[in-house]
Amino acid sequence: MTRPPIPTLDMEANTLTNPGIRTVAVLGGTGPQGRGLARRFAAAGLRVVLGSRTADRARAAAGELEAATGGQVEGADNLAAALLGEAVIVAVPWEAHAELLTELAPALAGKLVVDCVNPLGFDGKGAFALRVPEGSAAEQAAALLPESRVVAAFHHVSAVLLDDPAVEFVDSDVLVLGDDREAVDLVQQLVATIPGMRGVYGGRLRNAHQVEAFTANLISINRRYKAHSGLRVTDI
Amino acid sequence: MTRPPIPTLDMEANTLTNPGIRTVAVLGGTGPQGRGLARRFAAAGLRVVLGSRTADRARAAAGELEAATGGQVEGADNLAAALLGEAVIVAVPWEAHAELLTELAPALAGKLVVDCVNPLGFDGKGAFALRVPEGSAAEQAAALLPESRVVAAFHHVSAVLLDDPAVEFVDSDVLVLGDDREAVDLVQQLVATIPGMRGVYGGRLRNAHQVEAFTANLISINRRYKAHSGLRVTDI
Repeated sequence: MTRPPIPTLDMEANTLTNPGIRTVAVLGGTGPQGRGLARRFAAAGLRVVLGSRTADRARAAAGELEAATGGQVEGADNLAAALLGEAVIVAVPWEAHAELLTELAPALAGKLVVDCVNPLGFDGKGAFALRVPEGSAAEQAAALLPESRVVAAFHHVSAVLLDDPAVEFVDSDVLVLGDDREAVDLVQQLVATIPGMRGVYGGRLRNAHQVEAFTANLISINRRYKAHSGLRVTDI
Repeated sequence: MTRPPIPTLDMEANTLTNPGIRTVAVLGGTGPQGRGLARRFAAAGLRVVLGSRTADRARAAAGELEAATGGQVEGADNLAAALLGEAVIVAVPWEAHAELLTELAPALAGKLVVDCVNPLGFDGKGAFALRVPEGSAAEQAAALLPESRVVAAFHHVSAVLLDDPAVEFVDSDVLVLGDDREAVDLVQQLVATIPGMRGVYGGRLRNAHQVEAFTANLISINRRYKAHSGLRVTDI
């Protein structure tokens, strides 16, 4: 059986710094998921631009992350961050998703956009998946950003673990979904810069809904087992 | 942190044979998923009743499984199987799901019903999730079987691995979803009779859709990596 290579967990073998991405922008970079990813990318030696609604807030968070990681982290408003990033991670609340991407579409043209937004609702019984007219947050992004290369990833990684400097090894696979094979490969390489994490191709964007929605199940698991759960894919 | 116990992987500690389930019926038991589960339950010492549309076909498959496992396997039509099982596993094709459950509702009253049906479509680009008016196959089952205790489980386990006698250890967690805590616990115990598998509570039935639909992603993973993939939940 021939299998496509999966990015290795060995940081030495990481090829990202060669032809790959050197500057990652994180929109919503002051939220827990965004800041957790930014921390890991900065620690991996990537240049990181934190985006937020207000540049001041982003700069304050960037300064903290830079001091904590010894990496290179800047803060900016979301528009400036989008312009600076080679890869742009979308980690904003679902409620802000459509409006922000509509506004940033020209700035994101030609770029690799990595959507990690989970459209979820919450009530007394816990989390549940919201219906999205386009099918998923990722498909909404693809519809709003026809000039960008949209990939979906990082849905299931615990923000708590990402943002905890004491956690050296994040025990989780990341499903990477997209219709553009080269863009998916780049994001798999990006995942592999985080020790412990492995980027696994998870299907086309049309199958992103259930990956986003599955975060509701992980929240149920976390509540029942008092855990910060993640997923590993077996047999690969 | 106090965590609810997760059924152990150690067969010796399995409590199923005490107050739990002794007879498992598998509707659609001659299909790959149903037969694979039946094989494992028979090997674990449970009494298994294979159900099929035609009793003759079920009896032939039951004879083969009995010879292969040294267990106790009977064949019957789906109605007779439903009447015989304490737990009844629904492993029929999605296309047959609503009609069969409507027909069997009286026979399934009061029983533990374990739905493992994945409503999927297939085209040239692979598998994709179908929309289900009730939300999911499991919620459809719950709606059609108001007198039964409906739990959703076994969506992601590779039928190939289950049905391969050379595979002694099935490296996969099984998400068990339901609104009835005791019924969920029983199904977790049932999962634990299969070496390697662990039943993990995965949320309420309203979050079953994405678990069923996620099988489309595993099919994409299997195609890309030439694998029989499954899931493990980390940090529990």
